[in-house]
Amino acid sequence: MPSELRIFADEPGDTREEIMQATYRALSEHGYTDLSIQRIGEEFEKSTSLLYHHYDTKDELLMELLQFVLDRIEAQVPLREGATAYEQLRFSIEFVTGGLFAEDQARVVATLMELRSQALHDPAYRERFTEYDQFLHDWFVEVITTGIDSGVFHDVDPDATAEFLLTISEGTASRHMTTDGIDLEAIRREAKRYVDSHLLAEDGEEIASV
Amino acid sequence: MPSELRIFADEPGDTREEIMQATYRALSEHGYTDLSIQRIGEEFEKSTSLLYHHYDTKDELLMELLQFVLDRIEAQVPLREGATAYEQLRFSIEFVTGGLFAEDQARVVATLMELRSQALHDPAYRERFTEYDQFLHDWFVEVITTGIDSGVFHDVDPDATAEFLLTISEGTASRHMTTDGIDLEAIRREAKRYVDSHLLAEDGEEIASV
Repeated sequence: MPSELRIFADEPGDTREEIMQATYRALSEHGYTDLSIQRIGEEFEKSTSLLYHHYDTKDELLMELLQFVLDRIEAQVPLREGATAYEQLRFSIEFVTGGLFAEDQARVVATLMELRSQALHDPAYRERFTEYDQFLHDWFVEVITTGIDSGVFHDVDPDATAEFLLTISEGTASRHMTTDGIDLEAIRREAKRYVDSHLLAEDGEEIASV
Repeated sequence: MPSELRIFADEPGDTREEIMQATYRALSEHGYTDLSIQRIGEEFEKSTSLLYHHYDTKDELLMELLQFVLDRIEAQVPLREGATAYEQLRFSIEFVTGGLFAEDQARVVATLMELRSQALHDPAYRERFTEYDQFLHDWFVEVITTGIDSGVFHDVDPDATAEFLLTISEGTASRHMTTDGIDLEAIRREAKRYVDSHLLAEDGEEIASV
């Protein structure tokens, strides 16, 4: 997991990226329900008619934005060079219970939650979030499997453990973005405790700190 | 936790309950964005003008529905008579990773998720979901504290443990309702493992089965 997510460069590279950035801004500003191509046009430096020329509905723009955002996130969730599997998991727990919600990042999370809620009744959104969760699941499985192979972790079920960690991540984001008073620090501590007691082999911490 | 949630009686008790049921049905059918008082009227056996007389916006109806649904849920989350704290937690884990998503229940969960996503940009929804999460947090704290007092559980931090369990519950609901392929059984098993390894005292299981 990265320490920060960057979805947009300061200077958009091409017209498509400009359109995506305008869509992202308009969605952040107005929310899904009040979004319209007209309002996306207000965030777009070129002519709104260019948008109408390429897109018939706001959902076409939003599905493309979703793909764009998820591609960028997926490209930024690499295995960290030189970190052990144990460190990778601890980084990721710290990130999803902390850094993920810092300023600009929180807008990305809010955007994803806004779009995720469309998956309740729109199969296209559901399909895309299924792929995204699968990507994150596979990332966790890869880290856990690496840890098992190197003797840092016990021989646990990587898939079940990945599902659990991903669920904690999603629950933390949902609760943090929609309520006040969630105790992120407590969730971080309990998630680390789960990793330590369930995954970490007797001598894993020593291996981890070599 | 109950084994099923019932929000509406088969025969609505009064006009308010009829209005709430119509709002619930219309929201399930159309989703938040496409909902209108007109569409709620189509689910309502009495005159739509009655709705317009009492409510200016769909959000007024939805805030009242949210309160109605949460009140009903809160009234159905009692401590189970005769169950130990350990059994209560296991029931609740089984419920939030299984029974909660059975048929009619899933519509309740979808409704709550739809309304929760409004909390991303509407403080009134955010306030209500903060209270709801606090209610569920307090329920977990009560169970955990009872378990500590009776010697079934270790002397853990009830608040931190409650936050963690609540986050798992919310993450499970969000992922299950918006993606395909979540492994509920794995999450259930890992959540139980957390309870067993973190909370359960050495002799807790014996006390639990007395």
